[in-house]
Amino acid sequence: MEKIRMGFIGLGGRGRGNMHLCAGMPDVEITAVCDLYLDRAELSAKEIEERHGYRPFLTTDYRELVVRDDVDAVIVTSSWEDHIPLAIAAMKQGKAVAIEVGGAYSLNDCFELVRVQEETQAPFMFLENCCFDETELLVTSLVRKGVYGEVVHCSGAYGHDLRTEIIYGKENRHYRLRNYMHRNCENYPTHELGPIAKILGINRGNRMVSLVSMASKSAGLKTYVNDHKDKVDPELIGKEFAQGDVVTTIIKCAHGETIHLRLDTTLPRTYDRDFTVHGTKAYSKNNSFVLDAKGEHTVSLRDYKKHLPLCWTDMTEEGRQLGHGGMDGIEFRVFIDCLKENKPMPIDVYDAAAWMCISCLSETSIAQGGMPQEIPDFTHGQWLIRPLEDVVEFPDIEFEA
Amino acid sequence: MEKIRMGFIGLGGRGRGNMHLCAGMPDVEITAVCDLYLDRAELSAKEIEERHGYRPFLTTDYRELVVRDDVDAVIVTSSWEDHIPLAIAAMKQGKAVAIEVGGAYSLNDCFELVRVQEETQAPFMFLENCCFDETELLVTSLVRKGVYGEVVHCSGAYGHDLRTEIIYGKENRHYRLRNYMHRNCENYPTHELGPIAKILGINRGNRMVSLVSMASKSAGLKTYVNDHKDKVDPELIGKEFAQGDVVTTIIKCAHGETIHLRLDTTLPRTYDRDFTVHGTKAYSKNNSFVLDAKGEHTVSLRDYKKHLPLCWTDMTEEGRQLGHGGMDGIEFRVFIDCLKENKPMPIDVYDAAAWMCISCLSETSIAQGGMPQEIPDFTHGQWLIRPLEDVVEFPDIEFEA
Repeated sequence: MEKIRMGFIGLGGRGRGNMHLCAGMPDVEITAVCDLYLDRAELSAKEIEERHGYRPFLTTDYRELVVRDDVDAVIVTSSWEDHIPLAIAAMKQGKAVAIEVGGAYSLNDCFELVRVQEETQAPFMFLENCCFDETELLVTSLVRKGVYGEVVHCSGAYGHDLRTEIIYGKENRHYRLRNYMHRNCENYPTHELGPIAKILGINRGNRMVSLVSMASKSAGLKTYVNDHKDKVDPELIGKEFAQGDVVTTIIKCAHGETIHLRLDTTLPRTYDRDFTVHGTKAYSKNNSFVLDAKGEHTVSLRDYKKHLPLCWTDMTEEGRQLGHGGMDGIEFRVFIDCLKENKPMPIDVYDAAAWMCISCLSETSIAQGGMPQEIPDFTHGQWLIRPLEDVVEFPDIEFEA
Repeated sequence: MEKIRMGFIGLGGRGRGNMHLCAGMPDVEITAVCDLYLDRAELSAKEIEERHGYRPFLTTDYRELVVRDDVDAVIVTSSWEDHIPLAIAAMKQGKAVAIEVGGAYSLNDCFELVRVQEETQAPFMFLENCCFDETELLVTSLVRKGVYGEVVHCSGAYGHDLRTEIIYGKENRHYRLRNYMHRNCENYPTHELGPIAKILGINRGNRMVSLVSMASKSAGLKTYVNDHKDKVDPELIGKEFAQGDVVTTIIKCAHGETIHLRLDTTLPRTYDRDFTVHGTKAYSKNNSFVLDAKGEHTVSLRDYKKHLPLCWTDMTEEGRQLGHGGMDGIEFRVFIDCLKENKPMPIDVYDAAAWMCISCLSETSIAQGGMPQEIPDFTHGQWLIRPLEDVVEFPDIEFEA
């Protein structure tokens, strides 16, 4: 069996989790690990050795990793700031690349990411795991069958109380703290935007044309610090955070659809991505489903689960344990299979650029009091002819209301 | 007992409902009714006579109503377009006025409404019944006790599938159809905005400073017409509707709070106002409540119902029947009591102007691709000193998580 030899850069919590997920696959070998912090790289190498009986190369310098002949694919699971530079460095060495999610810091970085991928033709995938989640794929399957009629509006959120992760970020060497201290933007748009963009055919017959963003005041983190003075890093006491607690963004698409995004991470709440798709024939919000044909009442989307793709109907209990209820496993399986079969990646560099640029564009819009910002076309007009393509295949079963 | 003698202008479904609600109160007499359509005025007069044994004056000309000596208060329940002109005409005759909800068609109309009220000093109330609803008042009560900490973001919606009401509007002589054909805006903001504005102290130590709006394409009504060709007015077949199906608006307040509004009335869905208040110590969405002190899980707001105002803790089954589950009865009781006791109205002309202007400002923002619009201060700077005032009093009970 052909093995994909992977090098991981960035071995914090998420990086190590992904590394172990991949290491457990029969056709993957972890040949190199890299982190700015030596202890993280060492821990990762040690864990691979203990669990799988071989020891990957380890380094604190990514340049040593991306040049290695025993690395086929570089997985970038570093800080948000480094996703694009590391992807570019790896592609320039002819490596396949997959990068974890996060937003971009400048439009130019997005253009450069696209340029280098086009120049090198390196296989590139953006690791938006929520594109592979169960509800998102079930809705997509039903949209493709016409169940929603014409989709006119979608919304989603990253509703996740991250106060402790941010505030105690320094001791975890986490990148979120510095972002929340200095930036004010939709800093994490893709968990909700990714699946919506796929549904709306963004970069494939449709595109995002413009956006506006507004941010609320920043009060959640300051209040948290003030209420936990005895526990938090004393340097944080009295500090102002630039990041507004709730950032609301509205995106307009070429075909007139609107997308509403909410970043909501620094106030008390329960986790919710609030995945909402609204068409002329149906509406759903998470698993609540209103089907026009059945009148004005709510049913469960789960009643239609036979329209799920195989990766979910065949999901095992073991598979569900492999990171975020199963979606991470599906995602990496798709990446690896595309790589081995030399097929186009289902979330490509154009998707990455279009989705990531929302962060820096929202930053400008907020700073300008909500002024509309142009969202660039990264495809050079190819969105007009690129065919609709989903991240997985859906079963060919007729829909019955 | 002193009786308030009311004249009603506009006797469609809502007008007649309100008229009967008021006519049933022991201290109200309906002395005059007016509608552009004679049959509606006649039906209303006949019903009053049958149910209460007296016959009000009836006319199709509002000018005949507003000059009558036997009318103390004019209740405007007409088409949206006429709320402000009729209120102005009545105030100029020295009448107390209450107007039903709806949005404004121009900023100048809002300024003129304020000017005439200031000039005449006529008692004026904006009939936003949702300001008196149970969940809205329970949340407001808890906000006033500090339970939410600092409120930083609120959102709400008018999520109401009105397709049949709009499409068959011509035969019902309803005003919505012409609005949906010609305008594209947040045409009905106040059911959600009213309670939020009260919570945030708008016009009382806070104000709304600017907004942005974007509208989705318009597909819901056209699809509905196309699917019901045999039933609908043939003139509607093939017609374009200007109104986008979903309008998203973001408002920024002087103290940095954001308000997110969604108009969502022409696609399949169940009714939802999606009343959401997000503070540094608590979060609620309708009756789901997350209290920081109790950790990251959802409880029911109903568990805290002892903090409801008396009008709700004392609510009878009969009261709940009096229009929209009870809130309409509370609203008119407050209006009549303020009138009799010569007290300031709890939703005054400054609230009306600030809330209604969202419609015409959103229209401009949408037409300009989401450009931010200034929301005027209608109080001439008095918002800096006007004290916080709620629409009802809340019980002085200590909060226990």
